[in-house]
Amino acid sequence: MSKAARTHGKPLDFARGRVELSHGSGGKASAQLIEELFQSAFANAFLDAQDDGAQLPLPALAPGQRLVIATDSHVVAPLLFPGGDIGCLAVHGTLNDVAMNGAQPLWLASAFIIEEGLPLADLRRIVASMAAAARAAGVPIVTGDTKVVERGKGDGVFITTTGVGVTYAGSEISARRAAPGDRILVSGTLGDHGVAVMSKRQNMDFATGVVSDTAALHGLVDALLRAVPDVHVLRDPTRGGLASTLNEIAQTAGVGMRLQEQALPVREEVRAACEFLGLDPLYCANEGKLIAICPPDVADTALCALRAHPLGRDAAIVGHVVEDRHCFVSLHTVFGGERMIDWLAGEQLPRIC
Amino acid sequence: MSKAARTHGKPLDFARGRVELSHGSGGKASAQLIEELFQSAFANAFLDAQDDGAQLPLPALAPGQRLVIATDSHVVAPLLFPGGDIGCLAVHGTLNDVAMNGAQPLWLASAFIIEEGLPLADLRRIVASMAAAARAAGVPIVTGDTKVVERGKGDGVFITTTGVGVTYAGSEISARRAAPGDRILVSGTLGDHGVAVMSKRQNMDFATGVVSDTAALHGLVDALLRAVPDVHVLRDPTRGGLASTLNEIAQTAGVGMRLQEQALPVREEVRAACEFLGLDPLYCANEGKLIAICPPDVADTALCALRAHPLGRDAAIVGHVVEDRHCFVSLHTVFGGERMIDWLAGEQLPRIC
Repeated sequence: MSKAARTHGKPLDFARGRVELSHGSGGKASAQLIEELFQSAFANAFLDAQDDGAQLPLPALAPGQRLVIATDSHVVAPLLFPGGDIGCLAVHGTLNDVAMNGAQPLWLASAFIIEEGLPLADLRRIVASMAAAARAAGVPIVTGDTKVVERGKGDGVFITTTGVGVTYAGSEISARRAAPGDRILVSGTLGDHGVAVMSKRQNMDFATGVVSDTAALHGLVDALLRAVPDVHVLRDPTRGGLASTLNEIAQTAGVGMRLQEQALPVREEVRAACEFLGLDPLYCANEGKLIAICPPDVADTALCALRAHPLGRDAAIVGHVVEDRHCFVSLHTVFGGERMIDWLAGEQLPRIC
Repeated sequence: MSKAARTHGKPLDFARGRVELSHGSGGKASAQLIEELFQSAFANAFLDAQDDGAQLPLPALAPGQRLVIATDSHVVAPLLFPGGDIGCLAVHGTLNDVAMNGAQPLWLASAFIIEEGLPLADLRRIVASMAAAARAAGVPIVTGDTKVVERGKGDGVFITTTGVGVTYAGSEISARRAAPGDRILVSGTLGDHGVAVMSKRQNMDFATGVVSDTAALHGLVDALLRAVPDVHVLRDPTRGGLASTLNEIAQTAGVGMRLQEQALPVREEVRAACEFLGLDPLYCANEGKLIAICPPDVADTALCALRAHPLGRDAAIVGHVVEDRHCFVSLHTVFGGERMIDWLAGEQLPRIC
């Protein structure tokens, strides 16, 4: 029995209970939720200290090594989707942002904004998924916060995670480094996450059979950077998909990009579902894929390193960087034409992550 | 004109525009909002790199120095209240959590969850307030994220901030260290923030004249720890006020606490407003006050150090720690009686921070 339950009475009823405003109040009910749910699931000494923050032993950094901080709010709807849920997504999404800075993630912080009335059973399932994802990644959730808002002022639960890590010595990874001649690689099939969430929203997930690719990519990045330390850019094509992410990099670096349509890995079922749903896989979110941009002479080495890892088996070189003051991204189609890959104003799918 | 506006057309209309779902899409509209609002207001080289995270130069740590991470979601309602708004509150709240670990905050990350339809003018005002608070504190906002949820699925804006800092060499601050005999200090008047927000909700803010005490406390902590490195516990009594925070510390450390009512600093207008609103200032949130618990022989030195700082002028020694296996917190009243300061299940005021 938790300390709060001992001083208060009954333990939380995870079978039939719901989140109440008092669970976000900072009083005894908050303490009980933290102790019986979060501390128990995330289980580590830093969290157990019960301070408003975590004090962490940082290994000595080599010269030039930098600390990396990345933060992301997760508002995906629905909370559970084929292949994952908001819990594991919140872990993977932020670990990946740290990794895309050429860094090894060390710690995670998580902040929950819960809508009053959320079944405790749902919350427990989501927290268990987060805990499992963090454990599998080897990155503990060392501190957190819980707020509760009134019914109709939220949507189930929003989870903001922040990751802290340390860059690989010698790596220098930034969108600004994309340079003409560089090769563009993707680590696997495109659009899986976006289509999985969208097909769930349309109640056709059993028909499409597509599942989210949500996964932590820091192991893949480790394998890549050990083989090719001079990767110029890493980025995970989440919201807005490959198309938006490449346009963003092109704008930041002041370069253009040319893609080969036939080189782009897209699952047959994703292609079919996209056609049915009126989506373009190039603009659909991914949650377990990365884009790597590197000098041409190491592109094949990078490709082999990616393919040798379970999460990079379908990796491909999909295009190259060119000089272009308009910063256009274009696609050489399978029919031999050129198609502009425009930077859309919005996205096809709101609340995809 | 921003890059996104150059490629897209018009700059954002901050006078009449509203936040749309597309602003959270990861496409061109997102980039425009980030560039014209966040990058422009928070203005620093880390944010300008436009990567999904910030790469930061960490000074070499002395042996025993630790990294501190603290995170907090801010959901205060209303967004603007006497003495502050959710923007500066989100900066102060997290800086203070870092400082309460005996650490100097170095960097902040911020993640916005915005409800579709929020006037851009309101968002700009809030962001300007955040930027000003971060600048005044000397702690840059180095990375961030923006999500937009549909109307009725949020409440204006929620802001999650995460702070990273480094502990003072030689300091060892944790709730677990509260020990029998220790003195309990507070840095100033109690309940100001809770009463300011509550009186605004009740539309009686002009009558009470009470303003929030929201402030960054890392300067005050610096002054305190330089004078008294052996402070045992620091904590800011936010949600649930002094009463809840002391109960939490008592539970964590397995001790009891005895307070002197006549020593507790409470503004006359806060006391009056509390009486009218049916609140108890001991349970009302503070956003610019700290609790310090230290050995008795250094308590006076600590008090002087606090009082010498502009944010600690009304500091007082308000009680002491005792052995008590029930972990009770009690108050010796001005009438000579003893009153239990119970650990409430909930709080008097939801969404106070």
